[in-house]
Amino acid sequence: MTSAPFASAFTLSGRDLLGIEGLSAPEIVGLLDLAEEFIVLNRQIEKKCTTLRGRTQINIFFEASTRTQSSFEIAGKRLGADVMNMSVSSSSLKKGETLIDTAITLNAMNPDILVVRHHASGAVALLARKVDCCVVNAGDGAHEHPTQALLDALTIRRNKGRIAGLTVAICGDVLHSRVARSNILLLGALGANVRVVAPSTLLPAGIENFGVEVHRSMASGLDGADIVMMLRLQRERMAGSFIPSVKEYFHFYGLDEDKLRYARPDALVMHPGPMNRGVEIDSGVADGPQSLIREQVEMGVAVRMAVLDALARKLPNA
Amino acid sequence: MTSAPFASAFTLSGRDLLGIEGLSAPEIVGLLDLAEEFIVLNRQIEKKCTTLRGRTQINIFFEASTRTQSSFEIAGKRLGADVMNMSVSSSSLKKGETLIDTAITLNAMNPDILVVRHHASGAVALLARKVDCCVVNAGDGAHEHPTQALLDALTIRRNKGRIAGLTVAICGDVLHSRVARSNILLLGALGANVRVVAPSTLLPAGIENFGVEVHRSMASGLDGADIVMMLRLQRERMAGSFIPSVKEYFHFYGLDEDKLRYARPDALVMHPGPMNRGVEIDSGVADGPQSLIREQVEMGVAVRMAVLDALARKLPNA
Amino acid sequence: MTSAPFASAFTLSGRDLLGIEGLSAPEIVGLLDLAEEFIVLNRQIEKKCTTLRGRTQINIFFEASTRTQSSFEIAGKRLGADVMNMSVSSSSLKKGETLIDTAITLNAMNPDILVVRHHASGAVALLARKVDCCVVNAGDGAHEHPTQALLDALTIRRNKGRIAGLTVAICGDVLHSRVARSNILLLGALGANVRVVAPSTLLPAGIENFGVEVHRSMASGLDGADIVMMLRLQRERMAGSFIPSVKEYFHFYGLDEDKLRYARPDALVMHPGPMNRGVEIDSGVADGPQSLIREQVEMGVAVRMAVLDALARKLPNA
Repeated sequence: MTSAPFASAFTLSGRDLLGIEGLSAPEIVGLLDLAEEFIVLNRQIEKKCTTLRGRTQINIFFEASTRTQSSFEIAGKRLGADVMNMSVSSSSLKKGETLIDTAITLNAMNPDILVVRHHASGAVALLARKVDCCVVNAGDGAHEHPTQALLDALTIRRNKGRIAGLTVAICGDVLHSRVARSNILLLGALGANVRVVAPSTLLPAGIENFGVEVHRSMASGLDGADIVMMLRLQRERMAGSFIPSVKEYFHFYGLDEDKLRYARPDALVMHPGPMNRGVEIDSGVADGPQSLIREQVEMGVAVRMAVLDALARKLPNA
Repeated sequence: MTSAPFASAFTLSGRDLLGIEGLSAPEIVGLLDLAEEFIVLNRQIEKKCTTLRGRTQINIFFEASTRTQSSFEIAGKRLGADVMNMSVSSSSLKKGETLIDTAITLNAMNPDILVVRHHASGAVALLARKVDCCVVNAGDGAHEHPTQALLDALTIRRNKGRIAGLTVAICGDVLHSRVARSNILLLGALGANVRVVAPSTLLPAGIENFGVEVHRSMASGLDGADIVMMLRLQRERMAGSFIPSVKEYFHFYGLDEDKLRYARPDALVMHPGPMNRGVEIDSGVADGPQSLIREQVEMGVAVRMAVLDALARKLPNA
Repeated sequence: MTSAPFASAFTLSGRDLLGIEGLSAPEIVGLLDLAEEFIVLNRQIEKKCTTLRGRTQINIFFEASTRTQSSFEIAGKRLGADVMNMSVSSSSLKKGETLIDTAITLNAMNPDILVVRHHASGAVALLARKVDCCVVNAGDGAHEHPTQALLDALTIRRNKGRIAGLTVAICGDVLHSRVARSNILLLGALGANVRVVAPSTLLPAGIENFGVEVHRSMASGLDGADIVMMLRLQRERMAGSFIPSVKEYFHFYGLDEDKLRYARPDALVMHPGPMNRGVEIDSGVADGPQSLIREQVEMGVAVRMAVLDALARKLPNA
């Protein structure tokens, strides 16, 4: 699937990766192709190259995420970068100015790449405007999580051979999900038919304008689907009246073997993790033969290596 | 003590190091011999080799331990591995499934070695069954802490020239101690005479079946001992009625110069750290001429390098 | 400014860097000259050298400081060291002995350099007496913060071409500030005229004995100043009656454009960060054309590389 000359010439048009929005379809495909090379590398004994040797990558997470941070850390280290993690407790960030001061401070340490997660939509783009280096959005509020969408696309492409023409049902807490938003943009750009399936309370206003079919029942939403992509229920934000109860939510929207039968017999199941087993997904399905959940994590490291590599290629003098 | 050809041919029979249980005496000796080489390396200026170059080592600690985690981190880095630390707060681990999900997630990132500490006995073995890479138990509940026993044995062997035939008194909170358990197994396998010395409330039921002499007073327990190995009093688990008071505990079981006189004049004192000075050990003894406590820490890094090296030798294509 | 042969022959007379006190003027200048080389390196694509290859650097922070720890971590990694961070929560350090046990434990892991921050004045020097490796004071209580003073001096020298003869006004919470103390010593040693400007409640007793002019108003303190160095108001220690209110403090001592006009027209503004905008400094000044605050951070990495390099040159067999 990968041709070495193409991959080695590939670059992104922008300095940063702030979202799927703004990426062209050829750029998305280029990143996926490049990631294929890193899958091979990551399965070798010596999982290391010198692409980012002498470069400094700083992972700054204003919102904790062991899983995503680890994936970026491994990606950077395997590329040979000096990787530094900074965890910023929310307590040290009471004022808007402080994000900017943090950005300016980090930038002054001459990093090449900043990987940033922030709880507020748009904060990563704001930070990117204040620095000279590449910025990768590792998730900002309910806005975008572009490497998650890229790893999902890579996983789908490797298992279905294509993305165009597939029917992908994105199910659950679409309202709070940056994963949903980035996936809708990416899958749409590559020609998939995208549906969202959720109760009305978990759908953002105007979701139809994103070019997706909207379903309020799993029966209709999964009918004929090639891919069933479950979202994590953001239970920490569920204090209000979004769902009556976890038990009722599982009854109507949790993916179990019964509901999975609505989809095509060869449908594949995805979840960005970490899973709430028994809430949005049943363990039988999560661990079953149609699940790609484990493979998604592996693809995550490869895609992040591709993003870091592609961005670094555009750095001055590289 | 080390012969280079032997060391370079040495491997362990298993994929993992989950405990001293299951190791043969030649395997234990092989690890100690290999560790001797790393003691030499660690005392040089350039404390670095390329044994694990391009390998990924993940340290995942479900229970905080700055000391043990640091030792494994330094060990892996000196061997040239890419080392990643993951601290998992107990708050994110409320359900049994999550341990398995964490294991599956980590495994998908293609690590070569996982170093795992967990507060529950058996959890590390459970995790090991779910992954494809080597797993090292860095302490699981009250079960095993194999690298601690190996470093203790290395320290004893370097100072006494042998282990077989020595009388080793393990004193204190045997009930809660994985250190005691691993040491009893290892020292027994290498032919030492092992005693445990503790009040009845701090002795596990059936301890006699481990082939140890049981003493309830320091006077009889230390009589003729070559090695006095003190255990840390797990004060955080002492809410119940295990001991009447810290003061009374020190009076009867704390190692001070008076009690040390029960042992042989050339007896040596050990402690796995961190010490509760004035509780299980007096500062005069801890810092005195018979103490090996500082040396144990140095041996810890060397033994962990030996374990990581020996396990990595069996990885595919290595 | 740097001559390569001089830099490559430069060493410090002591094994440790515990403070500016004890450094000679030629040693200070030697470190600044060496740092100039690292500024160049840090602006290159491959920001990496092999000076500390195979060396182990441990950063142990008994008091959290994301900014300073990051600067030392990047410095060590760019020099090729294996860098390990240890964060020690205050909860695990209730007794004085534990600091010593921590020192002895770390030392037994054969590090080459320990970078230590501690909340108590003198604690770093105490720890240094217990170990065999180099120790760098990254801030101890209200005592010293030598690398901060060095980076400030480097920033001044690069912007004013010299330090001797300049008038430097250090303004604000002098009482609680190790930054002030180290700067007073360094700037005095290099021949600057140093003033402190603060309300009486924020001045230490006997400050006049340090050879500084003492001012209680910004108008007189800034009059004719070449450098206005603002200190962070340690609001966490302000529970008492040090200042009437933050608002009143800003009115009298916060640096805004009006007060900055008391200084020379070409005066430059510094702050060690993190800033309390609107408390000790106004955003217009912090981000204005006279501000060196961003450059200070960059100089911090270079100065720390110089310190680590200079100390490592004296290690045995290096």
